[in-house]
This record gives sequence, C-alpha cells and structure tokens, in this order.
Amino acid sequence: MFSHKFDDLVHALRRLPSVGPKSAQRMALHLMMKNRESAMLLANALSEAAQHIHSCEVCNSLTENRVCDICASHHRDETLLCVVESPADVMAIEQTGSFNGKYHVLGGHLSPLDGVGPDEIGIPRFIGRLSEGKIQEVILATNATVEGQATAHYLLEACKHLPVRMSRIAQGVPQGGELEYVDSHTLSQAVHQRMLFK
Amino acid sequence: MFSHKFDDLVHALRRLPSVGPKSAQRMALHLMMKNRESAMLLANALSEAAQHIHSCEVCNSLTENRVCDICASHHRDETLLCVVESPADVMAIEQTGSFNGKYHVLGGHLSPLDGVGPDEIGIPRFIGRLSEGKIQEVILATNATVEGQATAHYLLEACKHLPVRMSRIAQGVPQGGELEYVDSHTLSQAVHQRMLFK
Repeated sequence: MFSHKFDDLVHALRRLPSVGPKSAQRMALHLMMKNRESAMLLANALSEAAQHIHSCEVCNSLTENRVCDICASHHRDETLLCVVESPADVMAIEQTGSFNGKYHVLGGHLSPLDGVGPDEIGIPRFIGRLSEGKIQEVILATNATVEGQATAHYLLEACKHLPVRMSRIAQGVPQGGELEYVDSHTLSQAVHQRMLFK
Repeated sequence: MFSHKFDDLVHALRRLPSVGPKSAQRMALHLMMKNRESAMLLANALSEAAQHIHSCEVCNSLTENRVCDICASHHRDETLLCVVESPADVMAIEQTGSFNGKYHVLGGHLSPLDGVGPDEIGIPRFIGRLSEGKIQEVILATNATVEGQATAHYLLEACKHLPVRMSRIAQGVPQGGELEYVDSHTLSQAVHQRMLFK
C-alpha cells in the first residue's frame, strides 16, 4: 500500500503463527510509526537466532551449543528420560519445575498419511540412546491427541525388548475441571484409570 | 530457556502489538522449528522497512520516496483533502475505494494531558498546506472518539478564516447494525443528525 518494502514487511509478518492480514498490517504500522528501534531489534534477534540456534546433538531440543544445557547438566537424573514431541513441550514441563530427569525430543508424532514414520521422528536414534544402558525409566510424554497416543503406543512396543521401565503421563480430569464440563472420553478414562487409595 | 538468543528473540517479539509472553514463545518456537527461512525473510523485511520507510514530505503518511504515491498522483482530486489521525486510517479509507482526493496525516490527536498540543500533531503545517489555495474542501476524518472529536473541532475553529469548505465524516448507526444493540449515544446522534429526504 505505502511502498513495496511495507508490503514485504506485512507479508513476512503473516508467516508468524496466528497472524492474519489485519494483524500483520497493524504490526507493520505500529513498528513503522512508533517503534523503528523495536523493528531493528527484532530484525537482529531473528537473524541471530536463525543463524545460531540448532538442534541439540543428544536430545534434539534447541540450543546455541553442541549440547543443550539440560543434557550438559550434572545435576539432573540421568536414569530418567522424558520423551516429548517438541521443544515447546520441554519448555512446558520445565516451567512446572517438577521434573529433574533428561529429555528426548522426537520433533513430531507418527502420522503415516503425511508420510511421517518412525525414521522421520528419529525413533532408531532414540532406541540407540536407550541401548547405551544409562536410562532406567522412560516417561512417554507425547500429547494426549490421537497421533500422540499412537506414537506413545509405538514406542512402548519398540522398547519391549529393552530392560527399561516405561510409563505414560497420567490422563484424566484437569485440575480445577468440573466433571459437568469435561468431555465424556476424558471422564470415562478418569474413571477407568482411577487411583486406588486403600 | 534454550539459549540467550532464543530469549532475546522472545523479548523482541513481545514488542509487537497484542503479543503476550505465551504468543511470543510460540512464535519463536515456530520460527526456530519449522521456518528458519521465514525468520531470515522477516529479519530482512524489518531492517529494510526500518531503514527506508519514512514520512511523506507532503501528507505525512508513510513512503519509501520523498513524496508518497497518493500525493504524487495526477489522477486524484487535488481540491479535496481528507484529514486523518494515522497512516492506518489512510489504508482503511483507501481500501473502501470510495475516495479520490488527497490526504493529510496528523500523526495523532490532541491530548493536552499527554502533552500533545496543536504543534505536536503539525496543525500549523496543515494550515500552511491549506493556505496554498488549491484545496476547496477539507473532510475531517479523525476518529469518532472523544480525542478525535476534539481534534476535529479544533481544526474547524482553526480554519474558520480560510476560504475552504469543511465537513466531518457522517456519524450514526453502522451498516448492519441493529438499533437494539447500538449504544444510546450513537443512536441519539443518528436521530439528531437524520438525513432529510423530502
């Protein structure tokens, strides 16, 4: 509209998740009108990040170094491994502060229709990591979606022959959830997998 | 979390309008996981735009050149001038395709409590532009907010002595608006400023 460079900026902003044409236009105007400094700062942060952040050689999460901070740490339980779909899940679990083991990031879930099989999400590499013998328990923390469940199930089968304990994160009624509003599938699972106290 | 550069990127993204900590994190992960190319593209678009886009010398809108395309055009009515608060308003009016005059962008509205007086929004420059004698009608298209109304009123007073017609964009019930849900101030104005057919 105002110039080609302005339109280019609007198009580039639209590549951000959940940014539509109106939001992109508003962001571009905001940056050009009041925050030219922020625009340069964001430009630098983006190019620095794109050039220096890559996958951790051990767990496949994101890092600036060869190995990420969690993998490099000596203060974490090396016998406990939590398998997740993405680095966002590592962040979510780290933010709870309730897990002190190591992670393995698959980088996705099995989705045969999209051509994503065991090799695409690095399952052979994951099995290789287990075979080293350090890990005693694997927590399957893939999403509770259909694909996440299928991936967890596949991993369970694939690790059958290995001498490691396997567990799946608990599924049931979320904290603060009112039974009336919880979907019936979740509720039936919560009843089925009830905790026995006595 | 993953690295300093990742955190820097999240902070920089938070400077975008209506992007909170969660959205910024999601955007950063999205760019780092699947769209490194988009990250570089956005970085370039931002730095290009920040370096080359500036205010039009005539109308104060945004442009890459000395004078914007609208001001430079010979196909637009030079006798009709639409005064708006920001380049976003120019975009909004242009997108309607129903105006073929020229624009003047104030770059804000009068707001004495924030120290924004007539000089800060370039009213002397605007009066200067009118004094050139080309313009026959000024359409006051500042927002229909309290500040926008005050600014329109101020401009009306300030141009009293000049031989130009002054008008204000119509205010009333929006298209598709049901009277039941329109606020009473708007409705009373719509009745008061009714159009006479016969």
